[in-house]
Amino acid sequence: MNFEFHNPTQLVFGAGTLSRLGDVVSKHGKRALLVTGGGSVKRNGTFDRAIASLQAAGVSVVECSGIEPNPRISSVVRGAETARSEGCDVVIALGGGSTMDAAKVMAAAVFYQWDPWEMMAHGREKQGRPTRALPIVTVPTLAATGSEMNCGAVITNEETVEKSFVMADCLYPAVALVDPELTLSVPPEQTAFGVCDLITHVTESYFNGVDGTPLQDRFAEGVILTAMEWGPRAVADGDDLEARAQVQWASVVALNGWVQVGTDFTAPVHMIEHTLSAHHDVAHGAGLAVVNPAWMRFAAKARPARFAQFAQRVFGVPLKSADYLGCALEGVDRFEEFLRSIGCPIRLSQLGIGDAMLSRYARDTLRVAHDKEGLLPGRPPMNGEEIVEVLRSAL
Amino acid sequence: MNFEFHNPTQLVFGAGTLSRLGDVVSKHGKRALLVTGGGSVKRNGTFDRAIASLQAAGVSVVECSGIEPNPRISSVVRGAETARSEGCDVVIALGGGSTMDAAKVMAAAVFYQWDPWEMMAHGREKQGRPTRALPIVTVPTLAATGSEMNCGAVITNEETVEKSFVMADCLYPAVALVDPELTLSVPPEQTAFGVCDLITHVTESYFNGVDGTPLQDRFAEGVILTAMEWGPRAVADGDDLEARAQVQWASVVALNGWVQVGTDFTAPVHMIEHTLSAHHDVAHGAGLAVVNPAWMRFAAKARPARFAQFAQRVFGVPLKSADYLGCALEGVDRFEEFLRSIGCPIRLSQLGIGDAMLSRYARDTLRVAHDKEGLLPGRPPMNGEEIVEVLRSAL
Repeated sequence: MNFEFHNPTQLVFGAGTLSRLGDVVSKHGKRALLVTGGGSVKRNGTFDRAIASLQAAGVSVVECSGIEPNPRISSVVRGAETARSEGCDVVIALGGGSTMDAAKVMAAAVFYQWDPWEMMAHGREKQGRPTRALPIVTVPTLAATGSEMNCGAVITNEETVEKSFVMADCLYPAVALVDPELTLSVPPEQTAFGVCDLITHVTESYFNGVDGTPLQDRFAEGVILTAMEWGPRAVADGDDLEARAQVQWASVVALNGWVQVGTDFTAPVHMIEHTLSAHHDVAHGAGLAVVNPAWMRFAAKARPARFAQFAQRVFGVPLKSADYLGCALEGVDRFEEFLRSIGCPIRLSQLGIGDAMLSRYARDTLRVAHDKEGLLPGRPPMNGEEIVEVLRSAL
Repeated sequence: MNFEFHNPTQLVFGAGTLSRLGDVVSKHGKRALLVTGGGSVKRNGTFDRAIASLQAAGVSVVECSGIEPNPRISSVVRGAETARSEGCDVVIALGGGSTMDAAKVMAAAVFYQWDPWEMMAHGREKQGRPTRALPIVTVPTLAATGSEMNCGAVITNEETVEKSFVMADCLYPAVALVDPELTLSVPPEQTAFGVCDLITHVTESYFNGVDGTPLQDRFAEGVILTAMEWGPRAVADGDDLEARAQVQWASVVALNGWVQVGTDFTAPVHMIEHTLSAHHDVAHGAGLAVVNPAWMRFAAKARPARFAQFAQRVFGVPLKSADYLGCALEGVDRFEEFLRSIGCPIRLSQLGIGDAMLSRYARDTLRVAHDKEGLLPGRPPMNGEEIVEVLRSAL
């Protein structure tokens, strides 16, 4: 238990807080690069309300729209060039996780002397990490990635078909302005994918962190229980503002470091899913819903007591005759059933993915993320055949 | 669910981290006011190790020792005058909650234009709050108050026999350096009081916060369950470093805002206990162990379902035939029994307090903390007779 924690992001949370965007941003800059996604914020009026608030506060806006669902490094380069040429002094992300991740890397790329792709794949190394960025204000329109209040970003290189990530102190947003009203228009399917995404953030550190973190275990279980209580309500009735707020609050906490602190975790499920979505452009949360239970069944064999704890505390599965593995697998079944019940896919076939390229996915995953022995970091570390085995079990 | 959160304190946690004190402090100042308590840090060598680390990093030290267990405003004035006259540019607190609280207020008093006592009793108001402080580095030697990573401080005015508190953004320490090794020498009784203190921080917001905070509920329960699992081990074997680390980690999280965020809580149990310790100089955690269960039995009548949730989730008390109050009171009994089992007093008589001054305690409590109707804020708000009733039940 030796660790450091420092999350300097100011969180402003609550329905209606979008109206405070201008005031919030004006404390950090006067000319904003406003980064958005595919256009839904324009169709539903969020964009106009943001612009009005910024203008009222005297903040001028340069637009950078069209960030893809799996954001590309070429979009990052484009945004950074715009920010530089237009003299922006603050970056606003108005959108989902992809928009936020792209905006965060743009803010650092403005000062980065190398190709911005050099920042990526350095999640666990010092070299290549950016050290300076424009102040970032995140305004999430989806409850999912938690990117609004952390220092990470995931970007895809469309040329090399790689999806990789960066974590650096300068990527902590100055402010996360989290207004659950902005998520009211999210369709049920995307809402469910977000719930799966936030839960998977928590299960990664729960199952792939160091031993001896009882408090973090409780926090992780608390996030999952809350997401399982309120997620189905948000899926069933998108206008349920309380459910939207609880799910979004859970998504912030799921990856702002409060659950992961001190766990020194790895994220094999995310790494495998990143390969799938780099190849097939599937929704990240949907890919996780397929990969996570399949991976759990594999990993439970190596750590049955750990997975039994999950089954007991989250699903109330009783432990009978010290049959940890039986209890563990029952918990995974229940978890998978929960994901299915809210509308997530649980098989690769539902994502349109067959068995033709399983070895390629394994190879590509290991190319992006591997330890000194060439294995995918996790508990247990996995070789290519094991990745194939997990994916095959999810066909 | 509308709230803001911003805790900029950098946390450095782990056994042996005291050796990094000099490096940590030197990033914030070159001449430190080193605030300590009654001398235990000198007897056990912690002080010398701190000095050695500071000297190696080129930080000069001005000593301010002798902070009392319930720190006095006169000590704050003394320390601030020393910091000013000696030209200190950083304040280090090496000690328990009292030392940290005094040091934090000293750091602000250096710049404060009025009598430092004017800062206090402004916990919920804007006026009078300090806005600037010297950078603060906290090094707790006790797992209890959580003061190392929050913006609050409790100070006693020995002339008026008042104990009051301040919360202000400038009081967030720049760094909390938390080394569980420093708590190995804490005697069993003080260890138990610390466990009670940290649990009570969490129960205050759990029972006196707003409705509709399911995630915060889970976090609160997680802190309590962890403290109940590891606290007895730290009491039974003071040299159990893992137990010390888990208890101290729980004490940090119990009041760094992660559990309380968005709960907009009040702290009636603390307010009543502050009066007792202002009059009788009892250990804060010991006073809480007496007042909290007594208060819970009173408050459970107003919110039986909430207290039943506590009983069910923390103690596994079954809810039978929708008898929420019965379940609730069973939970309080178990909680009181836990406190007794680790060596906490559970009756006023054990603190040497009789029934002679109950009305005075109630009056003094209400003098320090009252709402517009003159009641002690909490759920439910309490009048003087009710405070007396609670204290009488704990005689």
